[in-house]
Amino acid sequence: MKYTDMTTEELKALETSLFEKYEDAKAAGLKLDMSRGKPAPNQLSISRGLLDVVNSKSDLHAEDGTDCSNYGNLTGIPECRRLLAQMVGTTPEHVYVFGASSLNIMYDQVARSFLHGVCGSIPWCRLDEVKWLCPVPGYDRHFGVTESFGVKMINIPMHEDGPDMDLVQKYVENDPAVKGIWCVPKYSNPQGFTYSEETVRRFAALKPAAEDFRIYWDNAYAVHHLYGDHKPDTLPDIISECEKAGHPDMVYEFFSTSKISFPGAGVSGIASSLANLQDIKKYMSVQIIGHDKLNQLRHARFFKDGAGIEEQMKKHAEFIRPKFDALLSVLDKELSGTGTGSWTHPNGGYFVSFDSAEKGCAKEIVRLCAEAGVKLTGAGATYPYHNDPDDTNIRLAPTFPTVAELTKAAEIFTVCVKLVSARKILEERA
Amino acid sequence: MKYTDMTTEELKALETSLFEKYEDAKAAGLKLDMSRGKPAPNQLSISRGLLDVVNSKSDLHAEDGTDCSNYGNLTGIPECRRLLAQMVGTTPEHVYVFGASSLNIMYDQVARSFLHGVCGSIPWCRLDEVKWLCPVPGYDRHFGVTESFGVKMINIPMHEDGPDMDLVQKYVENDPAVKGIWCVPKYSNPQGFTYSEETVRRFAALKPAAEDFRIYWDNAYAVHHLYGDHKPDTLPDIISECEKAGHPDMVYEFFSTSKISFPGAGVSGIASSLANLQDIKKYMSVQIIGHDKLNQLRHARFFKDGAGIEEQMKKHAEFIRPKFDALLSVLDKELSGTGTGSWTHPNGGYFVSFDSAEKGCAKEIVRLCAEAGVKLTGAGATYPYHNDPDDTNIRLAPTFPTVAELTKAAEIFTVCVKLVSARKILEERA
Repeated sequence: MKYTDMTTEELKALETSLFEKYEDAKAAGLKLDMSRGKPAPNQLSISRGLLDVVNSKSDLHAEDGTDCSNYGNLTGIPECRRLLAQMVGTTPEHVYVFGASSLNIMYDQVARSFLHGVCGSIPWCRLDEVKWLCPVPGYDRHFGVTESFGVKMINIPMHEDGPDMDLVQKYVENDPAVKGIWCVPKYSNPQGFTYSEETVRRFAALKPAAEDFRIYWDNAYAVHHLYGDHKPDTLPDIISECEKAGHPDMVYEFFSTSKISFPGAGVSGIASSLANLQDIKKYMSVQIIGHDKLNQLRHARFFKDGAGIEEQMKKHAEFIRPKFDALLSVLDKELSGTGTGSWTHPNGGYFVSFDSAEKGCAKEIVRLCAEAGVKLTGAGATYPYHNDPDDTNIRLAPTFPTVAELTKAAEIFTVCVKLVSARKILEERA
Repeated sequence: MKYTDMTTEELKALETSLFEKYEDAKAAGLKLDMSRGKPAPNQLSISRGLLDVVNSKSDLHAEDGTDCSNYGNLTGIPECRRLLAQMVGTTPEHVYVFGASSLNIMYDQVARSFLHGVCGSIPWCRLDEVKWLCPVPGYDRHFGVTESFGVKMINIPMHEDGPDMDLVQKYVENDPAVKGIWCVPKYSNPQGFTYSEETVRRFAALKPAAEDFRIYWDNAYAVHHLYGDHKPDTLPDIISECEKAGHPDMVYEFFSTSKISFPGAGVSGIASSLANLQDIKKYMSVQIIGHDKLNQLRHARFFKDGAGIEEQMKKHAEFIRPKFDALLSVLDKELSGTGTGSWTHPNGGYFVSFDSAEKGCAKEIVRLCAEAGVKLTGAGATYPYHNDPDDTNIRLAPTFPTVAELTKAAEIFTVCVKLVSARKILEERA
């Protein structure tokens, strides 16, 4: 029965029984973590072979003859550029390989734009205002980057097929202060949504008011399917879509193997037009002599090609899928029909996005969960400035705990959702 | 006999015979490279064991329990912080470990200062002018970093005991636009000079006009002795010297294992005061989740401690010393007494610095060498803006070629030095 359809007496009785349940859970003194998108330890074991493919007996030369154990090569060894290109569906000449962190590439790209401009434009540090579009809910670390540069972030609602493109278009095509937009186009963080073909085409067709506007296309979950063979989401290649639309320089695409091989010890890369890559190289050649080519070699030799990565992702899915299933089955069982909230059912990625039906509940749900030993991503984290205007959104990250832990954590979460929702409705009636 | 003491006829005859020698060398069609400070391939073989210490069977946890194969840890695993601290003679709490490139740390530090200021100071991008002191000759990539930010670089003469400290003091203590100085305090690039104790103390005692002035102390060759046991240069620890002098925040020290383990695939770090490290961490936590901890683990397990690194450096010296000896013996044999130039005799590092006695010779020597198949570091590279005002300095990098190649290259170099010098003297007499 929907809570809002209950009588006040029914709701009060429910609140009492929920509070008892909550107190019982709290008394159990659990310590569970559903806060960050981290692979579980047993997931990491499938990448251990990576540590053996480059050893003291190995030939350390890349296929173009580069000695990966010495200086040289700024843009990535050929086999690793090819590997990452295959992973995201572009061609190697569009790809530079960097170090382990794609967040670092994005940060540096924003920093470079502030310091030196974009392909000859005015450095953004000399502008009065820089604005950025932020599909919400979104990835907290993206918003953290632009916040650290004093950028004015503008919320854009996310739908199942991507950001509200009418709004995106209005801003991008009319306001020259809008210099960028954060996108997680596939299995989005936190919803698990994948942009539709039409959304991607509308992105590629944008006619920005600012010549130095760029789409920051963080394809972090390009191959992170949960249901492997039978229902992977698909996403058109943004690089070629932008080329076809006559705007080849409008996009930077980012990716890494952090949730494919080892988080923080994988390889990352950027894909973009040749003009953009030249612009990046100009500054990067001053910043660094070259990235870790031995780790590039490790990845190229371990995965071999895009198909090798897809195989690896099927193994990851075996670990992750039962966790999503467990979380979603608790949510479905405990919350369906209560009208207390809604949540996503992703086909991939690392997160489930939950929204309470009543406004002003998320912070209180997260607080109660924490007191009962269940750590969630901070409420508000999915919005710029940590400010969720309705205070409804919570990001659930089911990958790190075991299925048993997760089931327990999900149960406590649903108790808290129901308790806070019942109280909120009662409060509003009072 | 000194060329300047020769009669014009003697010099003309000499020029003719030198030119013949040069033409013979050119006809040999050699292809030799003395341009960059790269370890030779056989040198790299002594680090191959590093590739085995972290393998698929290894425990991947750091000593504090951190799983090095997952996210987490921004500032370096304890055993690697300790290793690098021992290497440069400071304590682990003063050290953060980064990725493979110390140049990248320096670049980012300058970039952060421009974007966000230093410990709360005005961001340098808002200043009309930023000035930087550059001991010359110096490291081209340092100058490249400050040049890329539009910094006004000021030449400071280098002596055997370090930069001209009277001049340094005058600039630093009187001009608030002076925000930094590039230092390679031990086995300097390109001279191989090591700052004296007095120089280090004078650095520590500086009273900068700008509160955000910082010494960029690139201790790149801290342990890179050529004559291992019997005559290593020593350098006081700048971190504790600055503390003692009451200016704990005035210095950033940089270092890496690039020429200890693998160039471009080692670990690098910064040492500084706790206040500076906090300031860096604030921005770094937005830029990256963490650096490659598996590579940190590799280095910590392979080298174990500072003594392990010293042992490794003795092995490196076995490869490098004969090359320095070969280069210097050719220079001594061919150029001594001619008065055509002077050169350094370093106890460590990767370079020999050569200066022609006559002004305006370096570019022509480098050009003639190149035509005869001997590639040298571009003349002028050791000065800001590639502008060696006297056009006399050439950096010689003897480590990459074999002894036989190097001897050949050095002979051609000396022929070119003599030929260009003879011509220059004749030109001046004409």
